[in-house]
Amino acid sequence: MTPVPNPRILYASIPTGYPIPGENTKYDDSEQIDLENVPLKGGYLTRTVLISPEPWLRERLRDPTVASYSSPMRLGLPMVGSGLVKVIRSEDPKIKVGDFMTGLILDNDARGLSGLTKVRKLPGKDWTALPGVLGAPGMTAWIGLKEYGDLKKGETIYVSTGAGALGSMVCQFAQAAGLKVIASTGSDEKVKYLMEVIGVDHAFNYKTTKVDSALSKWGPIDVYWDNVGGETLDAAIAHCNVHARILACGYISEYNGEEKYGNLAWFFKKRIRMYGILTSDLVPKWGGAFFEEMYRLLAEGELKTQEHIVHGLENADKAWVELLQGKHLGKTVVVVSDPEA
Amino acid sequence: MTPVPNPRILYASIPTGYPIPGENTKYDDSEQIDLENVPLKGGYLTRTVLISPEPWLRERLRDPTVASYSSPMRLGLPMVGSGLVKVIRSEDPKIKVGDFMTGLILDNDARGLSGLTKVRKLPGKDWTALPGVLGAPGMTAWIGLKEYGDLKKGETIYVSTGAGALGSMVCQFAQAAGLKVIASTGSDEKVKYLMEVIGVDHAFNYKTTKVDSALSKWGPIDVYWDNVGGETLDAAIAHCNVHARILACGYISEYNGEEKYGNLAWFFKKRIRMYGILTSDLVPKWGGAFFEEMYRLLAEGELKTQEHIVHGLENADKAWVELLQGKHLGKTVVVVSDPEA
Repeated sequence: MTPVPNPRILYASIPTGYPIPGENTKYDDSEQIDLENVPLKGGYLTRTVLISPEPWLRERLRDPTVASYSSPMRLGLPMVGSGLVKVIRSEDPKIKVGDFMTGLILDNDARGLSGLTKVRKLPGKDWTALPGVLGAPGMTAWIGLKEYGDLKKGETIYVSTGAGALGSMVCQFAQAAGLKVIASTGSDEKVKYLMEVIGVDHAFNYKTTKVDSALSKWGPIDVYWDNVGGETLDAAIAHCNVHARILACGYISEYNGEEKYGNLAWFFKKRIRMYGILTSDLVPKWGGAFFEEMYRLLAEGELKTQEHIVHGLENADKAWVELLQGKHLGKTVVVVSDPEA
Repeated sequence: MTPVPNPRILYASIPTGYPIPGENTKYDDSEQIDLENVPLKGGYLTRTVLISPEPWLRERLRDPTVASYSSPMRLGLPMVGSGLVKVIRSEDPKIKVGDFMTGLILDNDARGLSGLTKVRKLPGKDWTALPGVLGAPGMTAWIGLKEYGDLKKGETIYVSTGAGALGSMVCQFAQAAGLKVIASTGSDEKVKYLMEVIGVDHAFNYKTTKVDSALSKWGPIDVYWDNVGGETLDAAIAHCNVHARILACGYISEYNGEEKYGNLAWFFKKRIRMYGILTSDLVPKWGGAFFEEMYRLLAEGELKTQEHIVHGLENADKAWVELLQGKHLGKTVVVVSDPEA
């Protein structure tokens, strides 16, 4: 069979601030692959169906001398990303042609697939609904709350970036556990989505309402799901109840320089607990239960999802940057090929 | 029998900064008590043997409109404090004349005894060694580490105010668990005590050595026992290993105004956990095991204690203020009466 193009997006140069597609990242279709003859060595060959751009990837595009929680990406290699793939050839007896799998496409050194899990289509949902629920957003929300949330019926949770792919899952899992949910987001359209579609108890636009005044009105809080850090964390700490839990999941406010915090004495006075979360630490413990629960919730129509859909691998880097900028409502999903093909 | 004086120290006015004995607190011996005839109503009568001034009491001498973790003390009432008492009369069948008990002398509203535990003399130790080991310092150290420390042999702990009554217990419990111990303190004399008597691995005077440079040399750390907050906490966070634990036990750096913190993004990147500690929350769970373990360690000569002994109730408030100022080495104990009498 004639080889076909095997395009990818290369990591071209280290960005400062928001990455610039075409400069920091480059679409490259110069390579080809012979699908029928490429040696599998006991493994399997997949076709990418969906790509799920996620915020954590930004951290990896950094000067490799800067320490962080993830290994820095290497210049000149293809970009890593989560997504959905379909098996088109297999020499692995456990993996069959036509299987769908989700996880990281290309591992930390861009050498191939890593940590993939077989998935089935969700009843009543398009394939595009899958990365938000079964991928990093849903998994981080569910596992983080299970491990650290200690949620109790009647308590109050505050979720920053509540309308995002991750935040909207946190809101829904907390609602299901019987908590009152307060959520903040960055546009009035997203406030409307939170109130009318997700159905949280209180939502506000942090660009026009101070977190401190919102929590004065609707708090105090027992749990804070922290996606931003900075002043928002400061305000949340001040409105914590005794024995509150803070789940520190990402400090986007720090991407543009160091923040300073006050209010930490409340940790001691109110016996607050704060947990830094990285989902991959917890997947061995919670992964099985997570998938079981998601299939159940989706089968029962219990989970609302919203996607911002983009078509074509060549647009994946632009879609990712717009995600970092919070430009769209819903989980960004890039459709690369037809799942039914 | 003729009534005898029943002196106490009264809370006279709200202090700003360090309390001033004679002004914010006042020794008062105008009241008398008839030891043989005072009605017991099924309870028991005790004589105070030792008083154990402790830092947490400072928080209670505040404007009652300011919220905090403890209830504010009421002006005009006797000062509350921990200590050792001896039973001199009893109508309670579980409590016998001659029993010694430790705990809070006068409860939160200065109404009487509260949460007392019967204790026996420690082999080879004076009674004055007891408040440091069996009282709040030892109890907070041991229970805090058990509940939140997750100590693993070979790890490194950093203890601020390591030479204090509480800090020196944390150092020793961590050593016994096989950790490398780094401790800071506020004088060269205390550094010497930490190195030569307690036998920590590294000690430094924070007034002459920056925490950041000490931890650069001897860190990174897996556990930080935080008695101070402020810049020390900032530096400790920056030198944490992945999965480090921070035990927030008191933020003395904040007594003179609000501190600002950086570095909180490390919580997420390094999956740090931070726990606000209040021992009284945990006594129901750990109290029994704590007393058992302390008697065992003391019987085996495994625990070093050091006391700064002051005589006379009339000096208790001054001793307490000097404790807040870190003027002396060792646990401050005020001897009020002869335990053998």
